[in-house]
Amino acid sequence: MRHLLSTAQLDRDTAIELLDIAETMADVADREVKKLPTLRGKTVVNLFYEDSTRTRISFEAAAKRLSADVINFSAKGSSVSKGESLKDTAQTLQAMDADAVVIRHSASGAPQVLADSNWISAGIVNAGDGTHEHPTQALLDAFTMRRRLHGSASRGRDLDGVQVTIVGDILHSRVARSNLWLLTTLGASVTFVGPATLMPVGVDSWPATVSYDLDDTLRNNPPDVLMMLRIQSERMNAAFFPNEREYSRQWGLGDERLAALGPDSIVMHPGPMNRGLEISAAAADSPQSTVREQVANGVSVRMAVLYLLLSGEREVRL
Amino acid sequence: MRHLLSTAQLDRDTAIELLDIAETMADVADREVKKLPTLRGKTVVNLFYEDSTRTRISFEAAAKRLSADVINFSAKGSSVSKGESLKDTAQTLQAMDADAVVIRHSASGAPQVLADSNWISAGIVNAGDGTHEHPTQALLDAFTMRRRLHGSASRGRDLDGVQVTIVGDILHSRVARSNLWLLTTLGASVTFVGPATLMPVGVDSWPATVSYDLDDTLRNNPPDVLMMLRIQSERMNAAFFPNEREYSRQWGLGDERLAALGPDSIVMHPGPMNRGLEISAAAADSPQSTVREQVANGVSVRMAVLYLLLSGEREVRL
Amino acid sequence: MRHLLSTAQLDRDTAIELLDIAETMADVADREVKKLPTLRGKTVVNLFYEDSTRTRISFEAAAKRLSADVINFSAKGSSVSKGESLKDTAQTLQAMDADAVVIRHSASGAPQVLADSNWISAGIVNAGDGTHEHPTQALLDAFTMRRRLHGSASRGRDLDGVQVTIVGDILHSRVARSNLWLLTTLGASVTFVGPATLMPVGVDSWPATVSYDLDDTLRNNPPDVLMMLRIQSERMNAAFFPNEREYSRQWGLGDERLAALGPDSIVMHPGPMNRGLEISAAAADSPQSTVREQVANGVSVRMAVLYLLLSGEREVRL
Repeated sequence: MRHLLSTAQLDRDTAIELLDIAETMADVADREVKKLPTLRGKTVVNLFYEDSTRTRISFEAAAKRLSADVINFSAKGSSVSKGESLKDTAQTLQAMDADAVVIRHSASGAPQVLADSNWISAGIVNAGDGTHEHPTQALLDAFTMRRRLHGSASRGRDLDGVQVTIVGDILHSRVARSNLWLLTTLGASVTFVGPATLMPVGVDSWPATVSYDLDDTLRNNPPDVLMMLRIQSERMNAAFFPNEREYSRQWGLGDERLAALGPDSIVMHPGPMNRGLEISAAAADSPQSTVREQVANGVSVRMAVLYLLLSGEREVRL
Repeated sequence: MRHLLSTAQLDRDTAIELLDIAETMADVADREVKKLPTLRGKTVVNLFYEDSTRTRISFEAAAKRLSADVINFSAKGSSVSKGESLKDTAQTLQAMDADAVVIRHSASGAPQVLADSNWISAGIVNAGDGTHEHPTQALLDAFTMRRRLHGSASRGRDLDGVQVTIVGDILHSRVARSNLWLLTTLGASVTFVGPATLMPVGVDSWPATVSYDLDDTLRNNPPDVLMMLRIQSERMNAAFFPNEREYSRQWGLGDERLAALGPDSIVMHPGPMNRGLEISAAAADSPQSTVREQVANGVSVRMAVLYLLLSGEREVRL
Repeated sequence: MRHLLSTAQLDRDTAIELLDIAETMADVADREVKKLPTLRGKTVVNLFYEDSTRTRISFEAAAKRLSADVINFSAKGSSVSKGESLKDTAQTLQAMDADAVVIRHSASGAPQVLADSNWISAGIVNAGDGTHEHPTQALLDAFTMRRRLHGSASRGRDLDGVQVTIVGDILHSRVARSNLWLLTTLGASVTFVGPATLMPVGVDSWPATVSYDLDDTLRNNPPDVLMMLRIQSERMNAAFFPNEREYSRQWGLGDERLAALGPDSIVMHPGPMNRGLEISAAAADSPQSTVREQVANGVSVRMAVLYLLLSGEREVRL
């Protein structure tokens, strides 16, 4: 694997290999071995055109545990704001001999542009691009599901037959898209639920069941995994909701819906949560919630991605 | 010691142990050994909800000298600005396996909330919370006093009988509070001097002498240590001062007051100084001034705190 | 060498020594040895009063490849914005035992002030001060010229007889100034070309040929090296240009001028480029362009500077 740009491009075997490497990374951390020498001398650049402290520090922690050097390049207040193009920035990072570039960008496709160019030979990791994809989020979600559902027998397994229901602002969510492609590759069934105004045009051609009634879906197609997406207030307004209470009543995971879930089903959220809006505090903190595991697993999954990009195929590539 | 939240909670023995460890750290630095392997593999997160480059880089330098990894998490431009709660941020850091969280927050008590919660198992270090406490500042102040007063015979000693006079905006000063608790624990006597409008309600019940006349205090109760607090102009105005010159005349350490101090007394300031306002340039740069030592000692003291939290009791704790 | 403040102060031997050390650094990088232990335990502080992500990460990468610890101190949002003076900041860094301070400041002479003071004993590296100097930029430019012109026989060589033409906003350019001093020291001839409104008063007394007609200069005094400076739109306006197209037509390196250059001449730009304004995309990406090499060479040159300051003369100094 040269780059990680999208889950749509991941085949089943590579996806499972990544999840298995992440298991190893998590095992190592459990044994209190907090630092591996694997990527000593490699440089990982966090190239963030959008603020995202959580994702940035997750990648930073992952790289540092593998002993890589990390350089944070926030595009705010940088040459970028003086009009530097992505091409010039990429060539700068190339000239500085970056081994991996973790990029977050508001434009869908920006990581692909980098990877397709001959501007830079570093491995490119998409850390979220526009409304397109956020592949490491989907990988950590799949990792979390696999661990909850298969426990210590996770290695090598996929998510065959698992019912995943994703609720909320599907229209703007790169998390929903990345999850859809990865989950279907791994054999899961995906249902999107949300208001019609927050459902993408053309969603009918995607490999997902689409529903506009949350309670109906929970009753008739009970999920093994219920994933609540973050709603941003300006988008809630654009979806014609009079207020947060109304959105929460219709699309939030409140205590009543939580109680109606099957006892073995799990509740996920990519964070940061709006407690009381798309998810109640009780749901967020319930034993069924995996929110905290997701964050921890994010570091393991990102270690696996950097490892595979920088130590695995690097030998082949040079 | 699990956390360092306040000096009010520090007993005499632990305080002296911390100061003694800081002596060792300073000795090591004097021998040009700039990097100790002690905390290799540990992760220290600087979680700053308020800007404070000086305190942040002091902790960063301390952690790096002990070979810890440092992740800077500025709450500005982070998920926090999207409404993430302290709880969710803490759980994120927990999931990322932070060993210590150095937190600065505008809300008094925020570090205590973190420490009392079960959100995170990391050691919590209060780097300044509202008007409550700034314990490492008080520790570095006490360390500086001890070194000046006892020299190479400092180890194991307290500050019995030392007269410390703290001048200025007591009302808003967490530095004044942290110093008061620590200094009295170590046997010193503390006098607060300042305008009545900048003196806290209830100060009479604190273990400090309170004065509203600086010259009178300097004459009748000459200090071994004179600590000038930083005044912020908006608070000077709120204290009904017509201008800086008037404040300076009444409460600043000018050259005349400097000359009247005993030859062995020392002048302290937590920085950053307003030269010419609460302290004259001559006073700031005089041989009696400890301002620069305070900064250097700050790194040694913070090394001691991180060491005690992360290498000392960590074994007991896990 | 204690400090690197300007190229005006560099003698020929020291300049060539620096370029030769940079050759060694580049060779090491070419052998895929990405990390040298040379500066382990040293602390390099990036003290940036102006934003410049590119220069900052170039120094950061250089320091990390030499195994130094790096602390980034952005003056925005720091105590500086609370009115802290350069003196107090310097003393803070001194107290923290910084070994080198890389400073960028909007005030010409600020690095010299630091170096002349007794506030701090660290080696000072000027990373750009006002319109005064940017010595590491000139060094990387000279390094790049030497490599292009002399190839593997560069070591020990100067730039005797090389014709360098620098085009654009000379008035505000510290890059032009630093290049002028260094290039003439190394034996090159320098021509400044630009609109009269962007030429410094007193330029006639500088050791440069001055021209106000680009095509005439290219025809009658063909350069070995053509260096295009970045133009900032507010300055373009102040120079009475009606629009970008007009500036570009008169002073830009377009495809026609590129074609007229000698086949062995090289095209340089300090970046970030305004493609289509002072340089066309074709020129920027042509084989004659050294833009990307300049960035890569920047890391090697900065490694050499830090090495010479911190490991070379440090022994003498302490």
